[in-house]
Amino acid sequence: MGDDCAVLRPTDKPRVWTVDSAIAGVHFSRDFMSLDHIAQRAFAAAASDVAAMGGRAVAALSALTLPCTFTDDELTELVTGLARASDRFACPIVGGNLARGSELSLTTTVLGECPVRVLTRSGAQLGDGVFVTGTVGGAALGLRALSAQRGQEAVFLPAIEQFLTPAARLDVALEVAGLASAAIDVSDGLLQDLEHLCRASRLGARIEAALLPLLAGFVDAAEGLQLDPFALALEGGEDYQLLFTAPRELVPAGLATWIGSVVAESEGVRVFERAGTERATGRGFDHFRG
Amino acid sequence: MGDDCAVLRPTDKPRVWTVDSAIAGVHFSRDFMSLDHIAQRAFAAAASDVAAMGGRAVAALSALTLPCTFTDDELTELVTGLARASDRFACPIVGGNLARGSELSLTTTVLGECPVRVLTRSGAQLGDGVFVTGTVGGAALGLRALSAQRGQEAVFLPAIEQFLTPAARLDVALEVAGLASAAIDVSDGLLQDLEHLCRASRLGARIEAALLPLLAGFVDAAEGLQLDPFALALEGGEDYQLLFTAPRELVPAGLATWIGSVVAESEGVRVFERAGTERATGRGFDHFRG
Repeated sequence: MGDDCAVLRPTDKPRVWTVDSAIAGVHFSRDFMSLDHIAQRAFAAAASDVAAMGGRAVAALSALTLPCTFTDDELTELVTGLARASDRFACPIVGGNLARGSELSLTTTVLGECPVRVLTRSGAQLGDGVFVTGTVGGAALGLRALSAQRGQEAVFLPAIEQFLTPAARLDVALEVAGLASAAIDVSDGLLQDLEHLCRASRLGARIEAALLPLLAGFVDAAEGLQLDPFALALEGGEDYQLLFTAPRELVPAGLATWIGSVVAESEGVRVFERAGTERATGRGFDHFRG
Repeated sequence: MGDDCAVLRPTDKPRVWTVDSAIAGVHFSRDFMSLDHIAQRAFAAAASDVAAMGGRAVAALSALTLPCTFTDDELTELVTGLARASDRFACPIVGGNLARGSELSLTTTVLGECPVRVLTRSGAQLGDGVFVTGTVGGAALGLRALSAQRGQEAVFLPAIEQFLTPAARLDVALEVAGLASAAIDVSDGLLQDLEHLCRASRLGARIEAALLPLLAGFVDAAEGLQLDPFALALEGGEDYQLLFTAPRELVPAGLATWIGSVVAESEGVRVFERAGTERATGRGFDHFRG
């Protein structure tokens, strides 16, 4: 408990498995997302937990709760999205469950294996660098552009793409496992997930906002929606990139971006802006807020 | 797909894993069940799938969807029930997920392993006997006594006990795996589950209603609620006993009750009453009816 996956040891390789639920009205809205995308996102969110443990996906189970009014065509579209994600992450869906309920939900269980090593949140070392793969904030911006009904504007398309068909960094997870001291996936927001990692490692971190990797045109696009781009990048969730700590010299430039350093626990988790002033930060996604 | 669990082969022993959802208003009602019992039943339903495959439970993941109004005390009661079931089935809960939703639901993933062999629905042989462990119909009677607000009457207590804290026959699953040709657990109703087994095996079955193993006092108790005891036993679901086929001489009397025979596919699945007349049968639980 406490890491993104549970580890099952009595096999030739350590295996990890995880479960994640996506629920209508909480994790997604059908108002501006197709069932295909809803399914792809639900699958990616679960697969991402396996990547965060340094694993590769072995297989998945998909438990669907469908409203009575759900049509065969809707089910076909949902299953198409699951199949696409399953193909993309090379993770066959080998079983599942269908049940009736008042709201649509998708619960995905993924089993993975860790041929290199099992990566947890708790191994960060004082002086390690903090790294993140890909870019951050894109999914949050894409979601906000869609909910503002501005999804057709070209400036938002890369962010919308990241929101609708998120990565799950299984493609780099084994490489990260070979060099990282601790890792987590960015699901609740970079800052909140970094806090989880730091708490598990009993250390702090100092992040430089100017180093955060952003999509091209991200700042302008965010400001076009009257949003603070750094709030999106730090607190927006569901990027499903890997956030990890490692000795700085071990991490090749193409793998991830250096965004800060591991410091003493007493210093907490803090973000500094370009001028060196500390940034007041909000919070990421709280599952039980509101 | 098509069996109660998916089989994962690349380990030293075949492993099976399954997922099952229990949803408020569909699979349970809080009107006459405690959260403790709701949790125990949800866990047992998933663990029973592992037993049906001839496996022993290794570990479980528990994904909970909680309404915003759910209190800490309610969560404690729910978790107590999960812990009780986990202890009872010697199956540690090693992870899970918490999410907010409009209705309470519990989705349980169980991983098992099959040290004897993987038992499926498809191996029945012409001439095999049909067997069921324990008794059938008790859970359905218990549910109806509770919903009729007659749960305090002594005559219903054994049935209510079976409903609230169902078996999952992990205790006999390995023995069954050593002798059965095919198996399924009784979740949707004995007759419907037997139809699943027969379809997978491309055979039929003939059941003698008089041979069905019932709780002591079951017939009188059912009739006390104006219910047909044999309809409960044949069509009532959620007994979570094992229904299996095997050469009759292989099955010790203490393990399971002989209730009929495997016949040709063209004869279908039929039930005969004491006088040898065929019984018209209804259907078990349909997840998408109504």
